[in-house]
Amino acid sequence: MVQKPAPDAARRSEKSRRAIYDAALALVTEVGYPKTTIEGIAARAGVGKQTIYRWWSSKADVLLEAFLDLGAQASEQAAEAAAGRGGEQSLEHGLPDTGDLAADLKYVLRATVDELLDPKFEAPYRALAAEGVADEKVSTEFVARLLEPGLQLYVRRLETAQEAGDIRPGIDLRIALELFVSPLAQRWLQRTGPISHEYTDALVDYALHGLAPR
Amino acid sequence: MVQKPAPDAARRSEKSRRAIYDAALALVTEVGYPKTTIEGIAARAGVGKQTIYRWWSSKADVLLEAFLDLGAQASEQAAEAAAGRGGEQSLEHGLPDTGDLAADLKYVLRATVDELLDPKFEAPYRALAAEGVADEKVSTEFVARLLEPGLQLYVRRLETAQEAGDIRPGIDLRIALELFVSPLAQRWLQRTGPISHEYTDALVDYALHGLAPR
Repeated sequence: MVQKPAPDAARRSEKSRRAIYDAALALVTEVGYPKTTIEGIAARAGVGKQTIYRWWSSKADVLLEAFLDLGAQASEQAAEAAAGRGGEQSLEHGLPDTGDLAADLKYVLRATVDELLDPKFEAPYRALAAEGVADEKVSTEFVARLLEPGLQLYVRRLETAQEAGDIRPGIDLRIALELFVSPLAQRWLQRTGPISHEYTDALVDYALHGLAPR
Repeated sequence: MVQKPAPDAARRSEKSRRAIYDAALALVTEVGYPKTTIEGIAARAGVGKQTIYRWWSSKADVLLEAFLDLGAQASEQAAEAAAGRGGEQSLEHGLPDTGDLAADLKYVLRATVDELLDPKFEAPYRALAAEGVADEKVSTEFVARLLEPGLQLYVRRLETAQEAGDIRPGIDLRIALELFVSPLAQRWLQRTGPISHEYTDALVDYALHGLAPR
């Protein structure tokens, strides 16, 4: 979640903040994580270095907040799209819960596919993910602040489903979500195969019903 | 598969080849993929640059073969361990097939966990994987020559299982294997959670029997 600045004098700093996020995302896309610097971000955003250091302590910090902001934008777009579909709540506050677990999971994974295929999101996210694979410190922040909070939304939706009897008792829900989330992540990260709505729909069906005959 | 040199005069070149693989893996571990060069590998292996160019056309080529060789070594070790367990065939020629699909998958995934936790394997493999996330060209080679051939071994084992009635008809087996392979890959790549034998055992059980009540 992006911290909101205080209401007054907020408009100008909100504008600088957005310019800094845009500059950080553009730079990491173009030159990669290791060559992105606070100086470079400041120059591109047209602000002084001190403006950045007033709000963030490191480039990792700026980039993570820029991604959180990008994620929040995507989430708002998804909520708007969902309103057209019948008005689910924003993904920021939880996954949709229509009572139909398979449909809700398919809906969110389709939105994730769209996001991963959107160049605006794809390029900077890939640069950060690559650095996370190589560098444990970057990875730890990235997971704690960006990835895991998203995965916990699945845990909560699966908890509701388990209480409703749609998931077997005793299943570890933090592991369970990986059956449909991780295949999509690996195909995207390692380019082991194409991603599409049909693909994530199949993942959900296979994960819920199992590969073995019933 | 590593190409075998002609039998005569092979011993000396086999020794150079191994020295070059070792140098390449050590270098990529220490300085990362982008800074690894043919010159650096040659210097470290104590051979001339021309010796390397006689056998390989690029650093990507050397590194991929070094990994294939490392994989073949791991596979031999697994086969030796398997001999103690009752003599399965080497993983190079296919996954074990005892007729018990869950046991066979668990066995192979446990061996993969051990390999991923082995620093000798982990460090260079991570350096190559990180570069693959960032660079599509590296990724394409890496997937075609290293990752996909390994995944096809799962496809073949699942085909046998489907013929035996242990996997539902109509399941896309190339997608199915991702339910237990990709979660392990993502935890290792992105450090989203610990990996262990208990974890991969759970993945196999969840994937085969599904999350929903039966």
